[in-house]
Amino acid sequence: MKMTVISQNKTQFIDITSQIQAAVKTQGINSGLCFVFVPHTTAAVTINENADPAVPSDILNVLNTVIPRDLDYRHMEGNSAAHVKSSLVGASEVIAVKNGQLDLGTWQGVYFCEFDGPRTRHVNIKLIEE
Amino acid sequence: MKMTVISQNKTQFIDITSQIQAAVKTQGINSGLCFVFVPHTTAAVTINENADPAVPSDILNVLNTVIPRDLDYRHMEGNSAAHVKSSLVGASEVIAVKNGQLDLGTWQGVYFCEFDGPRTRHVNIKLIEE
Amino acid sequence: MKMTVISQNKTQFIDITSQIQAAVKTQGINSGLCFVFVPHTTAAVTINENADPAVPSDILNVLNTVIPRDLDYRHMEGNSAAHVKSSLVGASEVIAVKNGQLDLGTWQGVYFCEFDGPRTRHVNIKLIEE
Repeated sequence: MKMTVISQNKTQFIDITSQIQAAVKTQGINSGLCFVFVPHTTAAVTINENADPAVPSDILNVLNTVIPRDLDYRHMEGNSAAHVKSSLVGASEVIAVKNGQLDLGTWQGVYFCEFDGPRTRHVNIKLIEE
Repeated sequence: MKMTVISQNKTQFIDITSQIQAAVKTQGINSGLCFVFVPHTTAAVTINENADPAVPSDILNVLNTVIPRDLDYRHMEGNSAAHVKSSLVGASEVIAVKNGQLDLGTWQGVYFCEFDGPRTRHVNIKLIEE
Repeated sequence: MKMTVISQNKTQFIDITSQIQAAVKTQGINSGLCFVFVPHTTAAVTINENADPAVPSDILNVLNTVIPRDLDYRHMEGNSAAHVKSSLVGASEVIAVKNGQLDLGTWQGVYFCEFDGPRTRHVNIKLIEE
């Protein structure tokens, strides 16, 4: 299953938890694993707190501070820092499905991580039933 | 299956390899995948060397050095650095099971990573039989 | 299935996409998941752009810049920075298999990440058929 995510900013965390949960419901899986994959090299997916919007904002702030924008980069598209963030945060997450629901912790949500936007992006979701 | 991990320090790596191996044995899985998931947003799980205790100590030292403690954080709980470490190290690991054993490398162990302790934490283990 | 990777440099990204694709073909899997695991603690696996060789070179440059070489490390083998990179980039990747092919994005390839070479290394590949 493929979902579309549209980012508005250069770097941005977009909460996609409810869309993934909807995909689990659509496929009618009761128990198994949900595999979330980002088919891009300047984006990523992560799980973190989705109660306080300051949390994703702080994470982006740290990544944008720690990963140098102007190192002696050889890649000429000017987005090398985005490629680094993509490898550090990672292209996939696996989440258990239990009683038809994503088995996340109380404070956890799933974020699409845009590191070189704004762009129209895709997220692949694959469900493995037990 | 849910296991409990109790951390004693603010940041700490706790070797949980033997508990995960015990869970594999309890469920009687011979071959498949073991999925380890941390349902917290200021903790993580990683695989690294568990022969020399200096290794997890050095990893924590680097993370605590590289991720700024006092950036202009907006999240008011004072644990934004912990949220960042959680996303960088990651909430899950997948390990193959072979002949009833976790198929880890010679020097590999599985660590629960506490970034905002001390706390009582949980780790979810899900086994997929082949 | 176990494949061998031989690194030539201290730190190096080696594109292993075609070898993994060959493993998928050999096992005759049409649809499922491909699990790629590195059984080492000073190496990792990541997915990133494999069109421009400057991208992996830039990622290595950032990691080698951001992770300090000479912090007050306790581990006496002199490769603590490699252990840190291993935990940050991660020991595994999961990739969907669709129509007998790795379901990667247009620009994505799979890299073995050497952080303490040169060495002879191994990569474990496990395929789960749907």
